[in-house]
Amino acid sequence: MSDRLLTPDELETALRAIGAERYHNLHPFHRALHDGRLSKAQVQAWALNRYYYQARIPAKDATLLARLPTAELRREWRRRIEDHDGTEPGTGGVARWLRLTDGLGLDRDYVESLDGLLPGTRFAVDAYVHFVGERSILEAIASSLTELFSPNIISERVSGMLRNYSFITEETLAYFTPRLTQAPRDSDFALFYVKEHARTVERQQAVMDALRFKCGVLWSMLDALDYAYVAPGFVPPGAFAPRAG
Amino acid sequence: MSDRLLTPDELETALRAIGAERYHNLHPFHRALHDGRLSKAQVQAWALNRYYYQARIPAKDATLLARLPTAELRREWRRRIEDHDGTEPGTGGVARWLRLTDGLGLDRDYVESLDGLLPGTRFAVDAYVHFVGERSILEAIASSLTELFSPNIISERVSGMLRNYSFITEETLAYFTPRLTQAPRDSDFALFYVKEHARTVERQQAVMDALRFKCGVLWSMLDALDYAYVAPGFVPPGAFAPRAG
Repeated sequence: MSDRLLTPDELETALRAIGAERYHNLHPFHRALHDGRLSKAQVQAWALNRYYYQARIPAKDATLLARLPTAELRREWRRRIEDHDGTEPGTGGVARWLRLTDGLGLDRDYVESLDGLLPGTRFAVDAYVHFVGERSILEAIASSLTELFSPNIISERVSGMLRNYSFITEETLAYFTPRLTQAPRDSDFALFYVKEHARTVERQQAVMDALRFKCGVLWSMLDALDYAYVAPGFVPPGAFAPRAG
Repeated sequence: MSDRLLTPDELETALRAIGAERYHNLHPFHRALHDGRLSKAQVQAWALNRYYYQARIPAKDATLLARLPTAELRREWRRRIEDHDGTEPGTGGVARWLRLTDGLGLDRDYVESLDGLLPGTRFAVDAYVHFVGERSILEAIASSLTELFSPNIISERVSGMLRNYSFITEETLAYFTPRLTQAPRDSDFALFYVKEHARTVERQQAVMDALRFKCGVLWSMLDALDYAYVAPGFVPPGAFAPRAG
């Protein structure tokens, strides 16, 4: 780990290198998901757990929104909440994610109850919300930078899942299409902010650690899914238990 | 799940039933640990990750201490911090845990740096500290009730590890001996408090949910260890990587 001051462009390069090593597109669960090697029940488990992440993202963004000092910054960040919560019932990212769990045959009340959630999912997502409330604004913004890497994974995921699973349709994957334009817009802003404000060695290290932290959130969610539902397939007491067959 | 009001003794029975289903002595990683089926590197990974739990317990207890309304309750709870932090350097549970990681050949600076921690460990332990700060005092106290079940697991662990691992000595397991008397004293108090104060259906459900939550904390720590270091043995980027051999 370098401890000299990086130029803004060197910092961007260092951040992209963290993604190249730690972003969850490298996780075996993701490979299995995209390559069609999962059963419908395993895809259900993924969608059910990932729902909690989607459902808490507006809380994460509102936590940061409450701390931002200027109307300009708050307008920028408020757009994220609008993207996720929509402008009327049935719109926005959270509602679109529920169309995915519907399409997979999961009961909507069960999904929203969170009763079947893996504890590991809950703790990872809650850690993200707490991080954004407790760390500096710079670190909180930097923790969103995984979106730099998401367009690739989304393209892979959509084409792979449509090709490989008979139970997946374009309609059930409607969540992802708007994310292909929203995520780059959001990450462009966050990257610009971070490059502008991380002008000491200490702040640059904090920014890189924030991105590592966030990669750990996404990664550990897949660790928990893979352990519970793929190999060894050991479901914790109380969590979603797929029916055999 | 019953929704009628339980007598205090029925509540105790219900809480013990939660432990019988969800306490981490039932986890395959624990069975493997006690039965001598782990390598030294796998035992190191356990001790290194569990260190973070030990190290944060005083923060968990201080978070609750700060919220307790009476000197009587605070005196009771303060004793837990004294047990863990000791009365002088080198005493207390955290210091005794470091004798275990020392005995396993782990570098103390590395252990204390937390650099090798699994993200899943960090998120689970931090969830416990946050729970105690955010939930009702009754729920916070109830979440400590896993100690009702710990004397059994400690006896099993100490005898099993001494018998099965040449690299384990009584000295390295010194952490556990005082816990055999501290845990029952602490859980007696917590159980008495909970039975006394959970006198509505809603509060009884909250108490049971708090114990389920805490079982999930301990359980998901073992899920993360088992996934990373046993099966499939897939270590997340940046976490402790045992040397081969």
